[in-house]
Amino acid sequence: MNDAVVQKYGGSSVATAERIKAVAARVRARRATSPRLVVVVSAMGDTTDELIAMARTVCDEPSAREMDLLLSTGELVSCTLMAMALRHMGCEAVALTGAQAGIRTDALHSRARIVSVDPQRIVRELRRGRMVIVAGFQGITEDMDVTTLGRGGSDTTAVALAAALGARCCEIYTDVDGVFTADPRVVSNARKLDEISYEEMLELAQQGARVMHPRAVELGEMYQLPILVRSSFNDKPGTLIHGAVSVEYLNKVRGIAHDLDVAKISVVRVPDRPGVAFRLFAPLAQAGISVDTIVQNTGHDGNTDLSFTVSRNDFRRAVAIVEPAAREGGAEGLVTDEDLGKVSIVGTGIQHAPGYAARMFGALAEQGVNIEMITTSDIRITCVVRRGQIDKAVSALHATFELEKPEQLSAAPTTA
Amino acid sequence: MNDAVVQKYGGSSVATAERIKAVAARVRARRATSPRLVVVVSAMGDTTDELIAMARTVCDEPSAREMDLLLSTGELVSCTLMAMALRHMGCEAVALTGAQAGIRTDALHSRARIVSVDPQRIVRELRRGRMVIVAGFQGITEDMDVTTLGRGGSDTTAVALAAALGARCCEIYTDVDGVFTADPRVVSNARKLDEISYEEMLELAQQGARVMHPRAVELGEMYQLPILVRSSFNDKPGTLIHGAVSVEYLNKVRGIAHDLDVAKISVVRVPDRPGVAFRLFAPLAQAGISVDTIVQNTGHDGNTDLSFTVSRNDFRRAVAIVEPAAREGGAEGLVTDEDLGKVSIVGTGIQHAPGYAARMFGALAEQGVNIEMITTSDIRITCVVRRGQIDKAVSALHATFELEKPEQLSAAPTTA
Repeated sequence: MNDAVVQKYGGSSVATAERIKAVAARVRARRATSPRLVVVVSAMGDTTDELIAMARTVCDEPSAREMDLLLSTGELVSCTLMAMALRHMGCEAVALTGAQAGIRTDALHSRARIVSVDPQRIVRELRRGRMVIVAGFQGITEDMDVTTLGRGGSDTTAVALAAALGARCCEIYTDVDGVFTADPRVVSNARKLDEISYEEMLELAQQGARVMHPRAVELGEMYQLPILVRSSFNDKPGTLIHGAVSVEYLNKVRGIAHDLDVAKISVVRVPDRPGVAFRLFAPLAQAGISVDTIVQNTGHDGNTDLSFTVSRNDFRRAVAIVEPAAREGGAEGLVTDEDLGKVSIVGTGIQHAPGYAARMFGALAEQGVNIEMITTSDIRITCVVRRGQIDKAVSALHATFELEKPEQLSAAPTTA
Repeated sequence: MNDAVVQKYGGSSVATAERIKAVAARVRARRATSPRLVVVVSAMGDTTDELIAMARTVCDEPSAREMDLLLSTGELVSCTLMAMALRHMGCEAVALTGAQAGIRTDALHSRARIVSVDPQRIVRELRRGRMVIVAGFQGITEDMDVTTLGRGGSDTTAVALAAALGARCCEIYTDVDGVFTADPRVVSNARKLDEISYEEMLELAQQGARVMHPRAVELGEMYQLPILVRSSFNDKPGTLIHGAVSVEYLNKVRGIAHDLDVAKISVVRVPDRPGVAFRLFAPLAQAGISVDTIVQNTGHDGNTDLSFTVSRNDFRRAVAIVEPAAREGGAEGLVTDEDLGKVSIVGTGIQHAPGYAARMFGALAEQGVNIEMITTSDIRITCVVRRGQIDKAVSALHATFELEKPEQLSAAPTTA
């Protein structure tokens, strides 16, 4: 079905009955050019948070399975209302649960992974001439248990469905105009990007840019599916995430991401023997705690310091798990810091072009921002710094790399 | 699993988080004596009405399929919260959707009928030592579409599960103390019955007693499953609905039911030919409109008057359907009345014992209540009267048949 188009509307785009009607009108208009439309919706506004709060009134630690079933109702409500609003406008539309849409997942409740997509029912409904509205964020296990896909789940649903349908494009509608060079709430002259590569978007997303979840970007890259991120509140063209970003930009830094949710745990003076890292990180993985940055310095006296970061949500659990493991491994103890953030510059080729790291560190030093940890990838340099200094750091880097200026090709023909 | 017990808690019993916790405490206490507990819950309080109102804000006439999916979320929320509340009290409990509980239905959305119950999952969870909390009112079609069971749906879920599990008993928890001789809001000295037969309960329910839905009673009778109706707000013993009501009561009238939701349509002077009734009622059935009382008087001139009643909700649709059919059939026209109610006396054997009908009509005449229609069954006499006179009629009948007095056996031994 390469004439199918999959759209996804986030929670703020469907926050009220009025917004749902507004989106329905957009969807209906779009149908003229794209008759085979699949629309994935998130829960209305703060529904998910409200359901979580409701659960907490009856239970301190609800089981993940029941929590998933509870949370899945948020998207059921929004997708049925969207189908009804379309019907009211004369469009035949059918609302499908994640299970009906064929989203099969593993049983890792609250952060399930999609195992397969069986779009039979969607294809059948599209062939009947109906629009298909799918409840995002949810799937079903082999055992018929309802799961949720965790953060960014509805984006993942949309991209996975688009891939399974062989759709032309996946369109992600949100409350911002696209992907920016930095968070516009922090940097007032941040510039919207017209296009960005999967890799760059992935790094930005992983380092804290909230417009797209990394899982969905990853999936898009895997299937080479173009993803268009744009606003559901206006008609601006948005940002296209795709593989063939054809031009080589003069400025290799494409964007700056930041994240205020960083806690650091350092294991101090642990004997530098094989298996030490495994003994520390295996129980964290078992507990489902994602470890972000890991830094280890080789020691001189047979001991080493090993630091890593986790999200602040996981901090206490992580400390409780690592402390005994560290002691068993012969470490002196833990040093922790919950009050950190990270800032990253991202751009294809910055690791191969000289000077980007030096310019970054220089800009931070000039602002009096101390760097706690540094990590790099092929297309990214990340510094962990004090949380209170993040805004200052982002602004300084945005100015240093002149991201407010329109992009120029590195080999741009000179105008006569 | 003849040691299993199925309980059902209605919407008012689980209206708030506090009520859910109170019910969870009851359920937990019960576990000591009944370790294999299945608990069916309705949606919290007015959730269903709120969801319907929400749907109406986006669509005048939502499709029944989407409405069912929307409404099904009400019970998903209450059943997950109940499971969580139990877990908080240290009870392992698992929340199941109608689909997971094995409730398979036909595809008649908004009033689906249960086709089969496959309790495999429930049995497995009970064997693991878990309590099972089931979302009432919902099922799933062969095509994986979510359906709702219509009015009284959660009662039906509970009785059907109890039958499928071979449970000892089905307990219906509600906001009243049991089945009364008449609606206590109308008759202040109405008396709670300790027991009642399926047939009597069925008639009372069909004639307007709201404490139990007739479908659930019918199902209970079919499987000879005892149903205990009692309050979730106190520990009073309630009313047992069962087959073997062993004693023959002196007063054959067991209870009085009334219903304020009656509209009458009379087809006037329709030629009295074979097939006339069929031509009128077939399209009503097709439109899913339940026809209640039907009365036809034989005419003298080859014409006849044919009257029937429907619920006021269905009145307009019924008129729109019947009017052309009546004209085609050669009738003079329709006479309608939307402002009626009905009152019934119910008791095994009243048709075979003389004088009950006469006493009923006499009591109504004494109060100046005009009778518009009369119908009877083996164990019931029903009069359709003006809606405004219903309360007066119910009180008069309750007094006439002395239902406030404790029941006596007809062959009671005289005390010395």
